[in-house]
Amino acid sequence: MKLTTEQTQEIKDQQSQQNQTKRVTVPALESILYEAMPALDHGFVRVVDYMGDDSSIVQSARVSYGKGTKQVSTDAGLIKYLMRHWHSTPFEMCEIKYHVKLPIFIARQWIRHRTANVNEYSARYSILDKEFYLPSAKNLAAQSSINRQGRGDVIEGEQAKEVLELLKNDAEQTYDNYEMMLNQRFDGSTINENKKGLARELARMNLTLNTYTQWYWKTDLLNLMNFLRLRADSHAQYEIRVYADIMLDTVKKWVPITYDAFMDYRVGGTEVSAKGKAIIQKFIKGENVDISSSGLSKREWNELMQAFNLDDKKV
Amino acid sequence: MKLTTEQTQEIKDQQSQQNQTKRVTVPALESILYEAMPALDHGFVRVVDYMGDDSSIVQSARVSYGKGTKQVSTDAGLIKYLMRHWHSTPFEMCEIKYHVKLPIFIARQWIRHRTANVNEYSARYSILDKEFYLPSAKNLAAQSSINRQGRGDVIEGEQAKEVLELLKNDAEQTYDNYEMMLNQRFDGSTINENKKGLARELARMNLTLNTYTQWYWKTDLLNLMNFLRLRADSHAQYEIRVYADIMLDTVKKWVPITYDAFMDYRVGGTEVSAKGKAIIQKFIKGENVDISSSGLSKREWNELMQAFNLDDKKV
Amino acid sequence: MKLTTEQTQEIKDQQSQQNQTKRVTVPALESILYEAMPALDHGFVRVVDYMGDDSSIVQSARVSYGKGTKQVSTDAGLIKYLMRHWHSTPFEMCEIKYHVKLPIFIARQWIRHRTANVNEYSARYSILDKEFYLPSAKNLAAQSSINRQGRGDVIEGEQAKEVLELLKNDAEQTYDNYEMMLNQRFDGSTINENKKGLARELARMNLTLNTYTQWYWKTDLLNLMNFLRLRADSHAQYEIRVYADIMLDTVKKWVPITYDAFMDYRVGGTEVSAKGKAIIQKFIKGENVDISSSGLSKREWNELMQAFNLDDKKV
Amino acid sequence: MKLTTEQTQEIKDQQSQQNQTKRVTVPALESILYEAMPALDHGFVRVVDYMGDDSSIVQSARVSYGKGTKQVSTDAGLIKYLMRHWHSTPFEMCEIKYHVKLPIFIARQWIRHRTANVNEYSARYSILDKEFYLPSAKNLAAQSSINRQGRGDVIEGEQAKEVLELLKNDAEQTYDNYEMMLNQRFDGSTINENKKGLARELARMNLTLNTYTQWYWKTDLLNLMNFLRLRADSHAQYEIRVYADIMLDTVKKWVPITYDAFMDYRVGGTEVSAKGKAIIQKFIKGENVDISSSGLSKREWNELMQAFNLDDKKV
Repeated sequence: MKLTTEQTQEIKDQQSQQNQTKRVTVPALESILYEAMPALDHGFVRVVDYMGDDSSIVQSARVSYGKGTKQVSTDAGLIKYLMRHWHSTPFEMCEIKYHVKLPIFIARQWIRHRTANVNEYSARYSILDKEFYLPSAKNLAAQSSINRQGRGDVIEGEQAKEVLELLKNDAEQTYDNYEMMLNQRFDGSTINENKKGLARELARMNLTLNTYTQWYWKTDLLNLMNFLRLRADSHAQYEIRVYADIMLDTVKKWVPITYDAFMDYRVGGTEVSAKGKAIIQKFIKGENVDISSSGLSKREWNELMQAFNLDDKKV
Repeated sequence: MKLTTEQTQEIKDQQSQQNQTKRVTVPALESILYEAMPALDHGFVRVVDYMGDDSSIVQSARVSYGKGTKQVSTDAGLIKYLMRHWHSTPFEMCEIKYHVKLPIFIARQWIRHRTANVNEYSARYSILDKEFYLPSAKNLAAQSSINRQGRGDVIEGEQAKEVLELLKNDAEQTYDNYEMMLNQRFDGSTINENKKGLARELARMNLTLNTYTQWYWKTDLLNLMNFLRLRADSHAQYEIRVYADIMLDTVKKWVPITYDAFMDYRVGGTEVSAKGKAIIQKFIKGENVDISSSGLSKREWNELMQAFNLDDKKV
Repeated sequence: MKLTTEQTQEIKDQQSQQNQTKRVTVPALESILYEAMPALDHGFVRVVDYMGDDSSIVQSARVSYGKGTKQVSTDAGLIKYLMRHWHSTPFEMCEIKYHVKLPIFIARQWIRHRTANVNEYSARYSILDKEFYLPSAKNLAAQSSINRQGRGDVIEGEQAKEVLELLKNDAEQTYDNYEMMLNQRFDGSTINENKKGLARELARMNLTLNTYTQWYWKTDLLNLMNFLRLRADSHAQYEIRVYADIMLDTVKKWVPITYDAFMDYRVGGTEVSAKGKAIIQKFIKGENVDISSSGLSKREWNELMQAFNLDDKKV
Repeated sequence: MKLTTEQTQEIKDQQSQQNQTKRVTVPALESILYEAMPALDHGFVRVVDYMGDDSSIVQSARVSYGKGTKQVSTDAGLIKYLMRHWHSTPFEMCEIKYHVKLPIFIARQWIRHRTANVNEYSARYSILDKEFYLPSAKNLAAQSSINRQGRGDVIEGEQAKEVLELLKNDAEQTYDNYEMMLNQRFDGSTINENKKGLARELARMNLTLNTYTQWYWKTDLLNLMNFLRLRADSHAQYEIRVYADIMLDTVKKWVPITYDAFMDYRVGGTEVSAKGKAIIQKFIKGENVDISSSGLSKREWNELMQAFNLDDKKV
């Protein structure tokens, strides 16, 4: 990641602010506020604003559930209770805003999470920089024949080099032609100021999907956790997971109690179906169950065994 | 409005905070932060948190529209441009949280604005206070025969007294019975600790719709303006307008440039239909138009004349 | 439930339609279309429109996941897979519209589910009927001292009679006064046509929360399931559960494959936290775990034991 | 637009359905149901399902506003009233589902409209076809120096040929390399079955933004009109306008009364600010106003003059 002089100055200016406020503040989050945390080869994640902390969740839950919530004596106990029972609205009382730089094909996955506010850099009005994502050799991977959705055997050596070469050349060439179309140099020789260039809104179609874009993305804590649950997961594409992991760490700094409950109940937890519960109950009683009598498909059976680390029972 | 000792202390504690932050702050809004601004006879509006200011809107617009927005040289010019052209996402970058105490029948109107986060005091789990809304004599109004949706001639004198008496008595009686059902005093004599009271979730059904409730309500600036446009309008019910007017004033303190643009384009502005435009054009040219050739209904014609202060042209 | 002659006729007219369509249809749902299914003492649920069926979910999933989904050979297998892995968007491709009559205090719970479209009967513009909910003797229940949020020992005999009497009298009295205020009879003697009545928007505040209202409520299948998961649950208030159970049955008729998956994974399933998984794994291995070493609170421990029918392990 | 044999057969099968339903149907929309209406060079728009018609809007409005709406005697009058006064919820009672094939850079604009349900073809799991958008010679345009956001002088002749050549070559080359990376031919000679190809989720990043994708997109009528208001507008990018215009025509077939009101009040109408109203009033009175005393910027002044066809008053 390389910041422009302008960006570096903007961050420095933002970080040097010393404002007084009566709002709740989170020193651990303030300490990384505005900082550009690197993601992939050219991307970054910056926390640029936030509202609330763990106490804001407790405050709104107590207004809702009133005296009932006083039975749960501690804030941590209450937050865990809310998480366990899927109470959603108290977690919506915290809000965070990120500035993110990311490849377009990842932005397209990300935007599917609709309950968020977004302002993206517009290639209709502005010119994109010559920056595109190239996987590291380590992450360049062959699609596994078992799981066609993930990556299996790693592409190595010569083959990796060839792939990276191709990606790099194509991105550079399409970018150069994008720039040329914009810059009106169609007479094959020199820049001709009298010649019109192609509209930005059209020229951009020549760029490849690994070109970097950027946006401000603002959401509440509930929807952020929904996002992270899916995108910080091992089934998520590596490239979006890199961003999700950085953001997960900002959640830890921001709302540490909620973070713990989230890791325990959502990220580390599992859902068991009615049929699955019946099987687990038999296991506990020492009874025998096999897949044929379980009512589960092979895939579902194996997912259940794996969730409880019963690898020897996989079929 | 009367606050409990507990509430007064809470507000005092919140207002005495002196935190350092690198986030943008708005001194004018900080100066009223947490304050309970009275609404109706027992209600209030409190700003309890906020994110961003006018500059946050500009910041996100400039990331979106990039160099294009530099043509609009000032922040005020850009915000006016965004408002005029119905750009929505930059205004979503600011967020505000209110604590509101309001009568249930108003809460039911309010909640129809769905794009907001809400935590309401739960009468399923907690006991509501004996507080209900009674209109002031001034606002007690007879339903006009012309506009069945608004209020016309004012109910005065003896009649007003009778109405207020009825409202008061019914609210008090149903509240007393609510309390009695909760408090288990069903033997007609004394409190009997061994007797079960009615569940709160059931007893509450005996309360009248003017009973006060309270909630935390959090939304972004765009959706707040959508709310205020409808609810600070003269067609809105008086009781919700009281709240909207207070909130409008907090917007003025929070984002003064946006507030000006909002008042000019939305609140003070008007929409003219294609047919309406044709009529106005003829007026400007000094041509004659009457309703019969206009293609407008009587109602629409009069709305158009009123929008442009052409009262003499009403039919 | 008693329908007006007008309503009965409207339903008859709607049901007698015989239209041709190229859209997918669901005969089992068509057979109950428009029918007023009774709920509580005066309420009802009617399915008034729908879009899509189980095949619509499959169709959109296959466009998303393309050839990948062909590995899951059957539609039922695919729908189960989507449900198990929390895929959400395919279930949003089905839409349903209900017409519901329900007490106001239940409407207030219901409306908290924001991702739906609602048109409610407006007491600002129209006069509400004299219909209010009274619990059946069977459901009139005392609030348990153990669980203050639910109902424990049943209020019986004389006490029940007294409660019902109170609820009935208060609802009737406040309704009569509502009507009187509207109808301008404030001189204590006879109706005086020349006297103004109170505006509807104000008079309504005198009604109790068990007064019936009605609305059209339209949502997609995903959000309907989110609603049913919470509201057809044993922890939900009885009165809303009555509605949810009726709607659950319409889901069974509408999308039977999705219904089965929903019952297995969501309604009958359970979530286990990371800590909970570790405990269950030890149980399966025959190892001993007790609450003190589990890291769980008493409440959480008992919830876990109950989820797996291990009542003897409760503490 | 060229459909595969499979697609042609699917459409034929869908269109040959003859189902009975008690739901409201719209014959004019049924007549084009499932039909692939061509958009740009390879795209299409298909209506694949719908719920409701003009009468559904009226039905829900009448349940909301009750007897009050009976004053507005006709359905058309009521729908016009609702549109004029920005009533939103009745229009949400109609729902429509489209199947759309479109270039990725247009999909990225489109998806910014968040209140919709979407299932997009996933290039993570499936292979995209070799189809990309190339502008027609007619639409290939130079970015105007006046309005950097639109298109001005048309790029013609040799220059146009060069641009199209560039776009075509780059799209073809990047697609061929995409295919090669997937298909494992990295040894420079022949396909080697034993060699792993690159994961689809990675290979896709090599594609250009004019590559076609497809999705199911479902929304309610209110949000569809919000989309069309922005995207069928002359300021919208030509490529998305092509889709919006086709969809606008489906709205005309589906809900003709609402369509007329939409065209009159939204598409053909204009918003006038408070300051703008004052100026127009002076014009009507024959008074003189010039920009210096108007309080408007040059840009805003000209926008106002243009809205009322007062081109001679532009500055």
